[in-house]
Amino acid sequence: MPYNLSKITEPTLLLDLDKVRRNITRMQLKADAGVVFRPHFKTHQCAAVGEIFRQKGIEKITVSSLQMAEYFARHGWNDITLSFAVNLRQSTGIDKLAAKIQLNLLVENRRAVQHLAANLTSRTKVFIKIDTGYQRTGCHWENETEIFQLVNAVRESKQLQFAGLLAHAGHTYTAKSKEQILQIYQDTVGKMQQLQAGISERFGIRCVISIGDTPSCSLVTSFNGVDEIRPGNFVFYDAMQLQLGSCRAEEIALVLACPVVAKYETRQQIVIHGGAVHLSKESIPFKKKGRYYGLIVPLKRKTGWGNIFANSHVSSLSQEHGIIRADEALFKSIEIGDLLGIVPVHSCLTVNLMRKYLTSEGSIFKALQL
Amino acid sequence: MPYNLSKITEPTLLLDLDKVRRNITRMQLKADAGVVFRPHFKTHQCAAVGEIFRQKGIEKITVSSLQMAEYFARHGWNDITLSFAVNLRQSTGIDKLAAKIQLNLLVENRRAVQHLAANLTSRTKVFIKIDTGYQRTGCHWENETEIFQLVNAVRESKQLQFAGLLAHAGHTYTAKSKEQILQIYQDTVGKMQQLQAGISERFGIRCVISIGDTPSCSLVTSFNGVDEIRPGNFVFYDAMQLQLGSCRAEEIALVLACPVVAKYETRQQIVIHGGAVHLSKESIPFKKKGRYYGLIVPLKRKTGWGNIFANSHVSSLSQEHGIIRADEALFKSIEIGDLLGIVPVHSCLTVNLMRKYLTSEGSIFKALQL
Repeated sequence: MPYNLSKITEPTLLLDLDKVRRNITRMQLKADAGVVFRPHFKTHQCAAVGEIFRQKGIEKITVSSLQMAEYFARHGWNDITLSFAVNLRQSTGIDKLAAKIQLNLLVENRRAVQHLAANLTSRTKVFIKIDTGYQRTGCHWENETEIFQLVNAVRESKQLQFAGLLAHAGHTYTAKSKEQILQIYQDTVGKMQQLQAGISERFGIRCVISIGDTPSCSLVTSFNGVDEIRPGNFVFYDAMQLQLGSCRAEEIALVLACPVVAKYETRQQIVIHGGAVHLSKESIPFKKKGRYYGLIVPLKRKTGWGNIFANSHVSSLSQEHGIIRADEALFKSIEIGDLLGIVPVHSCLTVNLMRKYLTSEGSIFKALQL
Repeated sequence: MPYNLSKITEPTLLLDLDKVRRNITRMQLKADAGVVFRPHFKTHQCAAVGEIFRQKGIEKITVSSLQMAEYFARHGWNDITLSFAVNLRQSTGIDKLAAKIQLNLLVENRRAVQHLAANLTSRTKVFIKIDTGYQRTGCHWENETEIFQLVNAVRESKQLQFAGLLAHAGHTYTAKSKEQILQIYQDTVGKMQQLQAGISERFGIRCVISIGDTPSCSLVTSFNGVDEIRPGNFVFYDAMQLQLGSCRAEEIALVLACPVVAKYETRQQIVIHGGAVHLSKESIPFKKKGRYYGLIVPLKRKTGWGNIFANSHVSSLSQEHGIIRADEALFKSIEIGDLLGIVPVHSCLTVNLMRKYLTSEGSIFKALQL
């Protein structure tokens, strides 16, 4: 059953399940050679999308908040990595969940190790978060002494079990080319392996290396030297990934269907019902000083959507409005009351706002409700 | 009862109700001289905040979506302007609501007038949306012929009743000074009065002028020549309004309390649990090429929060993380596990994401649930 476009009255997130399945399969095949595929579920936040992963044999997942971990645990997921530098104020909730499932945490400082050691009642695995150059969170990879002290502190605690080293090379998102993404990946793996060797020498154990950004996981051909991957965005992709070269346009699995509410001949602009509360204000630098907030596709009853319109962008967003700078072909083809599809810049943030999908099979998928 | 900070475990929106009441009173006093005060409720989306307005005698409101209109109608509001170029695909829902309350719509093209005339069964008021220079939506103020044709089309329809002219001078948000905001306001009022005079001459009626952005409504001393004002953001204000000069820091009525999860001596940065899914990615240009995503305040049990830290900003956001570039005083005063308060750049978008407030009186206020 294709999308029933005639029933759409407001901004609606369309999800192409065939594309979702293909995106998962592609990543899974690449991970098959001995790497644990632990997809990040913060992108979809949806039990029904999770089921598609489960049908393909995935059993271990990643999330970015305790609330998501609790939600997916309720939906039968038993091995969840909460990939966020542990928020000490949530230790009661963390402990409660750790008693029910295999919950894996991230630490990156002594304070967190001490706090968890003192407050957790269930034995819990912890990864040490390594900063390989992104400079968001993590112990800097060069601080071997500090990292070894953390490994030691974890190993000395009865409550904690050392799970390995984890990195998120988020600086791939600012790379200027595919080559640069691959270079960041190689650099990250090299740094992690160096630490792994140091830990092996010092503690006589082989520890796991977990890495995870979508750009590098999409572009590398092999995960040699890595034990686990945690990409998330690849399940849907978006305009940002397209721009980075980590996906092709036909792999993007969701678009926001938006009603057209106005058009202006003199400035060749189309106004849609679809704004910052639907798409998020995530943007991509564009020409000199400009930014754009989405790409445009025509909607089609049978296939969902067509090719991205050239030279047309969502050029600004307010709370409920989106303004499209359209090329002539797009401008002429659209009437007030029609629908247009918007490819989000960042699908994770759009999903977080919309929290509901209309699928290519005619069903409604609900995401975690806040 | 002050905020119970010790119970906060995750990003939590703190709302100072005394500041809310003062912000409303200040605007109401200014509007008292014969102007209809029709506050925009898209900022708070919350029935309990609406009650504070109602206690002060406000009976007419503005919203930006049909869903909000339905929500506030359920909470007893009977005169609602849906201040968004009407989305024709929602005409069934609009008609249903218009049968129950005084719903006022916005039109700006013939297609919309024809569609409403053909599809509404209840007599409904419509404003004609005028573009006085913002270039988002509306009939350009110079297109008198087009505007007169619209007035005529509305007046000829049995279903529609001409309510007046409505403008949103959103270009005050890009003004460089208070003087420029006041100039945009005067310019907008002048253009609207010219159209009002033209309509009076042509149709022999005196039509209402409705205007409404928070920067100009906050800064003008009198609303002479205007019949109705629709500011929304003033109820909370935020970092953007502070930057524009439309409020003082002590008038900002909400901050996001965020747990500190990491700090880095070498780069003098603090990482908080509080990211794009809490604050939104709205930002303010800062220094050369930079942007910031929030200002920082210390949290205090009795008073809620203190003065904004100088030379410290939220410098980047990912889905759940916020990175603060801190000055030395802030950096030294904060430990992992503490809370910091973040003044949002755009309170409307932060509220839209958070959907729940912890008030200075110890209660939880829920916003419209999606």
